[in-house]
Amino acid sequence: MIKVAIFGGSGYTGGELIRILHHHRNAEITAVTSERLAGTPVSDTIRNLKDFHLNFEKPDLKAITKKADLFFLCLPHKTSQKIVSHLNKAGKKVIDLSADFRLKDIKTYKAWYHNEHLYPSLLKNAVYGLPEIYRETIKSASIIANPGCYPTSAILALAPVIGKNFVDADSIIIDSKSGVSGAGRKPSQPFMFCEVNESIKAYAVSSHRHTPEIEQELSNISTRKIKVIFTPHLIPMDRGILSTVYIRVKKNVDIAAIHKLYREFYRSEPFVRVLNNGLYPTTKAVAGSNYCDISVFLDNRSKNNNVLIILSAIDNLLKGASSQAVQNMNIMCGFDETEGLMTPSLFP
Amino acid sequence: MIKVAIFGGSGYTGGELIRILHHHRNAEITAVTSERLAGTPVSDTIRNLKDFHLNFEKPDLKAITKKADLFFLCLPHKTSQKIVSHLNKAGKKVIDLSADFRLKDIKTYKAWYHNEHLYPSLLKNAVYGLPEIYRETIKSASIIANPGCYPTSAILALAPVIGKNFVDADSIIIDSKSGVSGAGRKPSQPFMFCEVNESIKAYAVSSHRHTPEIEQELSNISTRKIKVIFTPHLIPMDRGILSTVYIRVKKNVDIAAIHKLYREFYRSEPFVRVLNNGLYPTTKAVAGSNYCDISVFLDNRSKNNNVLIILSAIDNLLKGASSQAVQNMNIMCGFDETEGLMTPSLFP
Amino acid sequence: MIKVAIFGGSGYTGGELIRILHHHRNAEITAVTSERLAGTPVSDTIRNLKDFHLNFEKPDLKAITKKADLFFLCLPHKTSQKIVSHLNKAGKKVIDLSADFRLKDIKTYKAWYHNEHLYPSLLKNAVYGLPEIYRETIKSASIIANPGCYPTSAILALAPVIGKNFVDADSIIIDSKSGVSGAGRKPSQPFMFCEVNESIKAYAVSSHRHTPEIEQELSNISTRKIKVIFTPHLIPMDRGILSTVYIRVKKNVDIAAIHKLYREFYRSEPFVRVLNNGLYPTTKAVAGSNYCDISVFLDNRSKNNNVLIILSAIDNLLKGASSQAVQNMNIMCGFDETEGLMTPSLFP
Amino acid sequence: MIKVAIFGGSGYTGGELIRILHHHRNAEITAVTSERLAGTPVSDTIRNLKDFHLNFEKPDLKAITKKADLFFLCLPHKTSQKIVSHLNKAGKKVIDLSADFRLKDIKTYKAWYHNEHLYPSLLKNAVYGLPEIYRETIKSASIIANPGCYPTSAILALAPVIGKNFVDADSIIIDSKSGVSGAGRKPSQPFMFCEVNESIKAYAVSSHRHTPEIEQELSNISTRKIKVIFTPHLIPMDRGILSTVYIRVKKNVDIAAIHKLYREFYRSEPFVRVLNNGLYPTTKAVAGSNYCDISVFLDNRSKNNNVLIILSAIDNLLKGASSQAVQNMNIMCGFDETEGLMTPSLFP
Repeated sequence: MIKVAIFGGSGYTGGELIRILHHHRNAEITAVTSERLAGTPVSDTIRNLKDFHLNFEKPDLKAITKKADLFFLCLPHKTSQKIVSHLNKAGKKVIDLSADFRLKDIKTYKAWYHNEHLYPSLLKNAVYGLPEIYRETIKSASIIANPGCYPTSAILALAPVIGKNFVDADSIIIDSKSGVSGAGRKPSQPFMFCEVNESIKAYAVSSHRHTPEIEQELSNISTRKIKVIFTPHLIPMDRGILSTVYIRVKKNVDIAAIHKLYREFYRSEPFVRVLNNGLYPTTKAVAGSNYCDISVFLDNRSKNNNVLIILSAIDNLLKGASSQAVQNMNIMCGFDETEGLMTPSLFP
Repeated sequence: MIKVAIFGGSGYTGGELIRILHHHRNAEITAVTSERLAGTPVSDTIRNLKDFHLNFEKPDLKAITKKADLFFLCLPHKTSQKIVSHLNKAGKKVIDLSADFRLKDIKTYKAWYHNEHLYPSLLKNAVYGLPEIYRETIKSASIIANPGCYPTSAILALAPVIGKNFVDADSIIIDSKSGVSGAGRKPSQPFMFCEVNESIKAYAVSSHRHTPEIEQELSNISTRKIKVIFTPHLIPMDRGILSTVYIRVKKNVDIAAIHKLYREFYRSEPFVRVLNNGLYPTTKAVAGSNYCDISVFLDNRSKNNNVLIILSAIDNLLKGASSQAVQNMNIMCGFDETEGLMTPSLFP
Repeated sequence: MIKVAIFGGSGYTGGELIRILHHHRNAEITAVTSERLAGTPVSDTIRNLKDFHLNFEKPDLKAITKKADLFFLCLPHKTSQKIVSHLNKAGKKVIDLSADFRLKDIKTYKAWYHNEHLYPSLLKNAVYGLPEIYRETIKSASIIANPGCYPTSAILALAPVIGKNFVDADSIIIDSKSGVSGAGRKPSQPFMFCEVNESIKAYAVSSHRHTPEIEQELSNISTRKIKVIFTPHLIPMDRGILSTVYIRVKKNVDIAAIHKLYREFYRSEPFVRVLNNGLYPTTKAVAGSNYCDISVFLDNRSKNNNVLIILSAIDNLLKGASSQAVQNMNIMCGFDETEGLMTPSLFP
Repeated sequence: MIKVAIFGGSGYTGGELIRILHHHRNAEITAVTSERLAGTPVSDTIRNLKDFHLNFEKPDLKAITKKADLFFLCLPHKTSQKIVSHLNKAGKKVIDLSADFRLKDIKTYKAWYHNEHLYPSLLKNAVYGLPEIYRETIKSASIIANPGCYPTSAILALAPVIGKNFVDADSIIIDSKSGVSGAGRKPSQPFMFCEVNESIKAYAVSSHRHTPEIEQELSNISTRKIKVIFTPHLIPMDRGILSTVYIRVKKNVDIAAIHKLYREFYRSEPFVRVLNNGLYPTTKAVAGSNYCDISVFLDNRSKNNNVLIILSAIDNLLKGASSQAVQNMNIMCGFDETEGLMTPSLFP
């Protein structure tokens, strides 16, 4: 039984962490912080957790540090890195859900987050917490940079083919559609019910901060420099990301072979499900779960533009954030990797 | 004042035609047919039109033909072409909302619709009813093939650039997101509330019947043979299509010049609004209206993959079907092109 | 042609006023104020009105007063009464969408709004702007207290029977369900998409400020003191209020006679539609319109508790606010009462 | 470990039963029937259950009877009673989710369900499966009539007060609001996405079949004959019922005393949560769980009409159907009553 604490527990990802960890057989939550709500019951704010009986605490770094062995940070970037550094010095394990330790190149970090990285040496030790790619390194990591929601869906969609010769790595287009919970819980007009309901729009075209994160990881996997076109969209639903990923292929590629490639790549993965030929992932079938559902199609109608179309669906708050964080904890601590995470989605 | 009749008026597009035409200053609805509902008040089925007092009639071709000068057909393809032929012989104007007269090549029609075209000579006379492209021909047409919803959004997005040298016409990807009303009103499990709500999925990847229609029109405009990758998605909302269109450009293209190109192309169009630089179309801002909102972005971060990203939003039932049909009627009959169509969307 | 101006035009009711008035044949909008957005185009904020070309202006009282003959106030109570007083002194007509002039008893006003009423003499002149009840007085009014959304739906449901002997006026229960737009456009966590979506709750039980307004008007109509039980609920949709109203009746009342009573009461009303026996109002059939749909049912299964169940549906932003305000303007100014208001709802 | 089988497993309640039972520590699913889908994988239809590997079977009564010790029936009434009789003769335990064994009076059953009850003697043995009221009898029952969704929410709301002297049992009004999943999964136009979305309506006023069920149980608890006014409404969301229940009280009742009464009545109940004074239940906080959240308010503003307002929220598919059925199984079989049922709802 490990003691865990959560910094910044009043938002959606904090709430989901508590929900999962509260019934986890190997973990005990000892503290949840919230600057604004300190002293009030967590269950007044995270309304579905009426049987969770802690109050929010002030984020008193010294006091909280003593309370646990492993920490989840649901804090804004910039704030997060300082606390990571402190906890790391104190010998604690940290899973950081912010973007502070995801980008390995501090210049890229500065360019996209308009913020100086103060701990470049820690950055070297931090492991990008996508278990399907970095499981072995995660086992011994002390700092996990928990992946962004869009990158999780995009990287898992492309990982099996990105290093292959038959694809054109310079042709990647990622068209992603996300539910509203990705925008967080802070009051903000653009995410008020009536602004978002019954509508869809693209946003941050060519400028979303998850772009360099996707590029870094695809470059790592393929061992060549990759740029992508990434377009996020906002959809009137609570949870879920569907990424529709396009990549050119050379003629005469066989879709059956590609299906096989995907199935083998994810054969032993407990949380990636490659769907049967012709079936479509839906966000509803993964919402509430740690699963990523993937299917692959080939459009070879054109002589000059044969394109692989890969669809991947995740729950942005779970495989895209909190349950992936718990999966990382399970791996870091030697627990069963699936502990606490086998809940299927609800239907309908 | 022209007399108009609607074949197949019990579905969503039929209802929208009635709503618009009932208050149109130059048209009078004289008959609305429905095989199944003949004899019952239209307003029992199209519940928002309580002040419209006709009953549905049996589709008795002879009797109905006499009742009007111009006909709207909201019928399934295959059924539609026979009635078009009959009405054409009787010297009537026809606006066909089915797919029967959209594809000029009967082999393509047969390949995608699994149906023989019985009136190839009529097909030659039929005009594809996209006023922004074919306004002059529409004026004297007797048969209008009213465009599909996805094609309307995709063609308007690409028309200003598709014939230009600086784009790679072999690289087009159209990622479209549609509200549920596009699936029609017939009972069907996949479109039941709980199946669709709180979810998003792609469907008919590489196989949607609107693909050859888009390709035909882009080929016409650009005067070269064009194939596209087209992926439709289903979104939990009533109305609206957002198309996110990707096309490669040669390096050193200037986004300001492209904005200018779009603005000039649509300068005198009453229903296409090119948004100011940096603004994003939303389906909510066009739902309930005949508008198409467009904006253009350029991603030139990569050396090898500069891509123009064009966003276009329409109401699938209006600019994508019924109000576009009325716009065609207005042009065919010499009415003010905007008559009955200047209603803005509701917000929120 | 009358000149009209709108104070507080950046919210939902302001936007709806502009939408209706912009195409009104007898009115011209000359100014729209917004403290916060002064100088910016109205159409940047009210995104569906791209063809409306005014900028927001500072609410400079002197300057604005000169610009119009009739004013709509979409301001918070307390702020509103001062501007009403100023405009009234300047001889202008005012339609106040706030609650400041609805309650005739200043003690009741103070008790429910925690605010002193500074203009009790103006209050006497103000007319409660429910045309179905006060049409004649509205004609010559200079100040209109435009009714609240819930009161509009509740009063229209009860007006035909509330003064009758066969009902028990001490037994009224009003169970109302509202879309989210009633909460306005100001950022607020409880009305963020993910907080409201896929959920329903009651709120302000026994304490909603519309309670005394409903009671005042039902007391007026019935000429006896009436108290009601009023429970509002929040529903995950943009627009619409459905009120389910319960009132005990004496045994042996005939439902056919009650239907007749309702039909006759509203016979000449252009915007109240009493539905055919057995049909149910839906908010969707009135959303986007100025209609109020009503139907009546009698439950006489119990010996001791025979209850009339009246269902009424309106669009909270329209008949419950902005279009009712325009209806009042039409009456005050001698225009056709339905001018600008005959738009049906959209379906679906 | 008990063997269980499900008759009629392709709908929403069947799917939820499988989801819960598949991870239940004391139960093993051995068969799931579906006439229409026999031979196909359950997980193709119940899409969230990809790790459940049975196929649907034909409902071959003899064969299925042998496969299990306890049976869940998710069948239409009329069909259900015959299978209950057969299984009962074979000595099996049965939990019937249909209405066939809920109404103890066969004349009432016939009047509301237009169907003759063929097994009046079995009816005597059947126990109404609301554990909070009938826990002791459930322990030894062989046939459970699993309660309807609306009755569960209404009875739990009223049980603590219905037998008390200070309430007027002839004044009960139950205004219930339900998500769409209550209508089942069978294709039907009124429950298509676009018909239901963005709208609310009442239906079956004074005539819903759950009315006599509510009346029977309230009469039992209070030991007097009770009739209720019951109005169901349809809300655009997947899951959840909120019942707003009104009952007159005699003057001088103390709300604090009533709160205490509720808290004590449900003190040892694992799944009924009486909320703190002033808090409102939401369906979102119970959706996906077996909880029923209740709060109580008193409106004593009127001299003549003091009313208790009780709000209760459940998940219609869970506490209103499938998880309540599992709770009944747990009690019948001597398992921990909460086994498999402690999952909190998701938020958001």
